Amino acid sequence: MLSAAQQMSPTGQRPSADLPSRDARLVYRSGKVGVTAGVAPGFVQGNLAILPEKLASSFHRFCQLNPKPCPIIGMSEVGDPRIPALGVDLDLRTDLPRYRIWRDGKLVEEPTDIMAHWRDDLVAFVLGCSFSFEEALIADGLKIRHIEEKRNVPMYRTNVPCASAGPFAGQLVVSMRPFKPADAIRAIQITTRFPAVHGAPVHFDKPEMIGIKDISKPDYGDAVSIQPDEVPVFWACGVTPQSVILQSRPDFAITHAPGHMLVTDVRNSEFSIQ
Amino acid sequence: MLSAAQQMSPTGQRPSADLPSRDARLVYRSGKVGVTAGVAPGFVQGNLAILPEKLASSFHRFCQLNPKPCPIIGMSEVGDPRIPALGVDLDLRTDLPRYRIWRDGKLVEEPTDIMAHWRDDLVAFVLGCSFSFEEALIADGLKIRHIEEKRNVPMYRTNVPCASAGPFAGQLVVSMRPFKPADAIRAIQITTRFPAVHGAPVHFDKPEMIGIKDISKPDYGDAVSIQPDEVPVFWACGVTPQSVILQSRPDFAITHAPGHMLVTDVRNSEFSIQ
Repeated sequence: MLSAAQQMSPTGQRPSADLPSRDARLVYRSGKVGVTAGVAPGFVQGNLAILPEKLASSFHRFCQLNPKPCPIIGMSEVGDPRIPALGVDLDLRTDLPRYRIWRDGKLVEEPTDIMAHWRDDLVAFVLGCSFSFEEALIADGLKIRHIEEKRNVPMYRTNVPCASAGPFAGQLVVSMRPFKPADAIRAIQITTRFPAVHGAPVHFDKPEMIGIKDISKPDYGDAVSIQPDEVPVFWACGVTPQSVILQSRPDFAITHAPGHMLVTDVRNSEFSIQ
Repeated sequence: MLSAAQQMSPTGQRPSADLPSRDARLVYRSGKVGVTAGVAPGFVQGNLAILPEKLASSFHRFCQLNPKPCPIIGMSEVGDPRIPALGVDLDLRTDLPRYRIWRDGKLVEEPTDIMAHWRDDLVAFVLGCSFSFEEALIADGLKIRHIEEKRNVPMYRTNVPCASAGPFAGQLVVSMRPFKPADAIRAIQITTRFPAVHGAPVHFDKPEMIGIKDISKPDYGDAVSIQPDEVPVFWACGVTPQSVILQSRPDFAITHAPGHMLVTDVRNSEFSIQ
């Protein structure tokens, strides 16, 4: 998925000057904290997962095998905290508003930078996030319930197994947005154009078919209202890789804190295949 | 929608030699009768509607306003029974296996040719048909219930009004195919590529939302089984224009007999926009 970005220059570097996305990163770099929802509209935000090199190839293979929940939009060299294709001056150690440090699968710290935790053997993965396709849905006139109700998107653990790779195995996590059927059809068409940010839904209606027992009790995020003339529509969710990483209990891992994403200089429209 | 066909030659004529579609038309021209389901696989079949010139411009406008149920894939000159863009030697008076003659909205005859009924003031419209997208669904590995159960596709009158034009007004008719949700998502993606043959579904699930009271009692065609893990998916149907023409009670009209379509020399794949 790097090709569109890498086509920008022979070196795969993306100029960052004067972009609101760069401004946002510089603000976070200076120590300001806040969730990134609504920040730098039009620019791709990504999920961050950082693992020691000895686990990185298995995790890379896991993402390759499960592209809907784990669409890789950027990856660092070993020990390099930069991904120039997502922003030339981007520094993964400082540019997110908040991080989570995990040891043996347990959350040990939530710092606002990871300068003290960076190591020469770490590899960073940036994975696409549904913010990009939600922007395309809104631009088409569709209303997103959790945004209207000012809540976090509801997310559910399913009984759908991901393809496993090395120590990484687990079930798909999905996000849910309710729509009237005609709007759901339009949402399927629009999100199909964005395979780099989860793409088309994996399921709709009949939550029990994917192991969701109570739609009013999401496993992550907040419940939202569903009207009688609406169906729940389920997309593969970027929480899946975090959930799978934690289940595999790696001795060390760093992720973004929920809602505190990496803001990149890639425009959402660049990830549309049409 | 003629452009793909017209690009074939500077005159918009489509060479017919050695095509199974042409062979089929010659067989029907010789007087043989039969439904066209499964005939000349890979080639577009069309719904036929023939009206006097005084009504044709209103009907043309009706189709323009309602492209999902009434996708025009060919149209004759006034009084000309040929549409070279759909097949060079095609003769609309003889090349369908069976026709219906309507006077004042009443069926008066079902001849195997319309040589005796042709007039210099008639205009013929050929409208896309779901056979084309069903072929694409099957090619992708999806199973079409009514084909598996060897029945006609179930069709329903809805309470969804078409946009009216002159005397032509009425409700949308839909065809229904049941799918598991994940397969329905795939079917939406595939049929989106075929706007010239009804395109994406207009609705799924919750039949009452479009005025269907009993899914087990279609208004046209045959009922098919729907499993508990499936949802009915509804596409705009080519029966809509026939239904609307008959409701408007034109003094004279000719259509194909149900299931006895026009077989053209256009390949289904040419109507895919990707």
